[in-house]
Amino acid sequence: MFAADLKSDTLKAMVNIISTLIDEVKFTVKPDGMTLKAVDAAHVAMIEMNINEKAFESYSAEDTELGLDLEKVKGVLKLAGSGEVIRMEQDDSTGKLVFKVGNITRRMSLIDTAGMNDPKVPQLSLAATIEVPIEELQKGIRAVESISDHITLKAGPEFFELSCEGDTDSVSLRLDKSAATIDTSSDVCSMFPPDYLANIIKAIPAGTKVNIELDNDYPVKLVFALAGGAMEVSYLLAPRIESE
Amino acid sequence: MFAADLKSDTLKAMVNIISTLIDEVKFTVKPDGMTLKAVDAAHVAMIEMNINEKAFESYSAEDTELGLDLEKVKGVLKLAGSGEVIRMEQDDSTGKLVFKVGNITRRMSLIDTAGMNDPKVPQLSLAATIEVPIEELQKGIRAVESISDHITLKAGPEFFELSCEGDTDSVSLRLDKSAATIDTSSDVCSMFPPDYLANIIKAIPAGTKVNIELDNDYPVKLVFALAGGAMEVSYLLAPRIESE
Amino acid sequence: MFAADLKSDTLKAMVNIISTLIDEVKFTVKPDGMTLKAVDAAHVAMIEMNINEKAFESYSAEDTELGLDLEKVKGVLKLAGSGEVIRMEQDDSTGKLVFKVGNITRRMSLIDTAGMNDPKVPQLSLAATIEVPIEELQKGIRAVESISDHITLKAGPEFFELSCEGDTDSVSLRLDKSAATIDTSSDVCSMFPPDYLANIIKAIPAGTKVNIELDNDYPVKLVFALAGGAMEVSYLLAPRIESE
Repeated sequence: MFAADLKSDTLKAMVNIISTLIDEVKFTVKPDGMTLKAVDAAHVAMIEMNINEKAFESYSAEDTELGLDLEKVKGVLKLAGSGEVIRMEQDDSTGKLVFKVGNITRRMSLIDTAGMNDPKVPQLSLAATIEVPIEELQKGIRAVESISDHITLKAGPEFFELSCEGDTDSVSLRLDKSAATIDTSSDVCSMFPPDYLANIIKAIPAGTKVNIELDNDYPVKLVFALAGGAMEVSYLLAPRIESE
Repeated sequence: MFAADLKSDTLKAMVNIISTLIDEVKFTVKPDGMTLKAVDAAHVAMIEMNINEKAFESYSAEDTELGLDLEKVKGVLKLAGSGEVIRMEQDDSTGKLVFKVGNITRRMSLIDTAGMNDPKVPQLSLAATIEVPIEELQKGIRAVESISDHITLKAGPEFFELSCEGDTDSVSLRLDKSAATIDTSSDVCSMFPPDYLANIIKAIPAGTKVNIELDNDYPVKLVFALAGGAMEVSYLLAPRIESE
Repeated sequence: MFAADLKSDTLKAMVNIISTLIDEVKFTVKPDGMTLKAVDAAHVAMIEMNINEKAFESYSAEDTELGLDLEKVKGVLKLAGSGEVIRMEQDDSTGKLVFKVGNITRRMSLIDTAGMNDPKVPQLSLAATIEVPIEELQKGIRAVESISDHITLKAGPEFFELSCEGDTDSVSLRLDKSAATIDTSSDVCSMFPPDYLANIIKAIPAGTKVNIELDNDYPVKLVFALAGGAMEVSYLLAPRIESE
């Protein structure tokens, strides 16, 4: 049994963020909320999402799994205006998920979740933590797109920097403590593939504060909350380590 | 002789609606207004348009025919802002139609209407009549586009439904008497090709009320008025009848 | 030594106008401003630009040359909002030009200006001078795009006309003395290639008054000021002379 009402903006943020990695996903549904763990086909990045029932306008569920094709859900989102509530309800007789938006009813077949195992999320303890408004990161990503080489993330006790170095040109976004909350005792630096970082940063909604956890030649972890704190997202991206 | 002033929005609605079926058209011009009858190349749909002289800001004409290439008229519409008045005047010496928009003069050669015969419009008496705001139909069309199979229109004494059934998924717009004026004593149902229905519904301007006349495995007729009632449009679409 | 602050809108107008002709350009920098002379690869059109130091928010320079790839500068412009100030500063150690927009720093390698000679700008004395708001010319250009043959510019003591004649259709923008300031004692007329004229007219920002200097089968000269008069632009376009 699963029935819930959700603001279209919340569902849209969820779908946009997950679909930077993968289109067919399994949600693990419990009486007090839903969780998702997903990894992309190349095993470069991983998302963990915990959605408390408070993220929903109404929520009522037993333990179950929902296998969703996110491209189809994007089709439903096109039918809902900003702020509109989308009803989702599993039809017990057919097993299909039924979306209702205003006078429209969309019956969607689910994906078989039998072969879909949750990836194991590594526990990392990273040296630096930086909190930044997503708008700053989005400016930085737009800036490095003109060069489109690997992106370097650096932090020290007094700064955070997102930069990209080409053969002749370079570009960087540098934030001091007036624009970011920075917590590290030493300098740290890792390099990342540009597309993954660009896609996740563009998918995070305006107004979000993102916690960046960083270390030397280690994965970066982006942690942020949506839906007024009721949805927690953790995104882990493997570093690109230069061979010498 | 033909000379008229017309709001760009009215000309735009006319052109958008007719060009869902055909690009080269003949208008029959009379002293009190213009009429058009047009059928698409595949003979699946038909438009009848009656434009009273009151639809124009000014109108002065003798009996004549105007053969127009609607793609060229769309070019003229790009030069006019919303609410701007477009002057149309036939040049008696060259026979060309002269459009004036602000300081711009566009002289357009007409199409020879000699071989263009008006199609015969069938007289139909259909069991159900439903009046719906075009916005509801446009939402329904956006919803069924994710499935893009034949569209079913259904009505009963208490409901009107636009729906589409795929192999595994389905979608429907269902309106009760609070959202539509429904007049039928029995249930009726016909199926239609999706592109035709989508194109005409998208071409009808916001704020229009559309009268849908429907029966069992029969053509559907969409009747609506534009230009404050001075322009009447009737659109007839053949059903898709499933062979068994 | 070169360091200057410039409003993004001013830099954008400069780049848009010059890049209708050429992408790699040389600016001649002096203590009181910058100049540019550029011709397109086909030698059909020429731009001369004089930028007084008053066009900048701040300006400090010694005699030097800056070789810029305008496509890269367009990338910088995407990072700045309207009204935002862009800092440009040459790094004396590397020779690179450093752009700063908010927290973003973009280091750009310059183009070698050794082989880039300034074209010789011909001195012309043309019979007619017409001053027109750029918006009128932009409407005229949109209108002639449906025909896309050579564009004819004509002027007489009482009118200015931009027109285009196709095989069967024609279009014209005609301005009288209420819409343009016209100064000519005789009728003049020249024909021009449509793309060049369309591109420069579209690149000139709204609100600009353009001085058109015209004669019979002679180049046309468009002269206009930007940045409150601190930047003067002169654009010269060769005529298309019909062989008989």
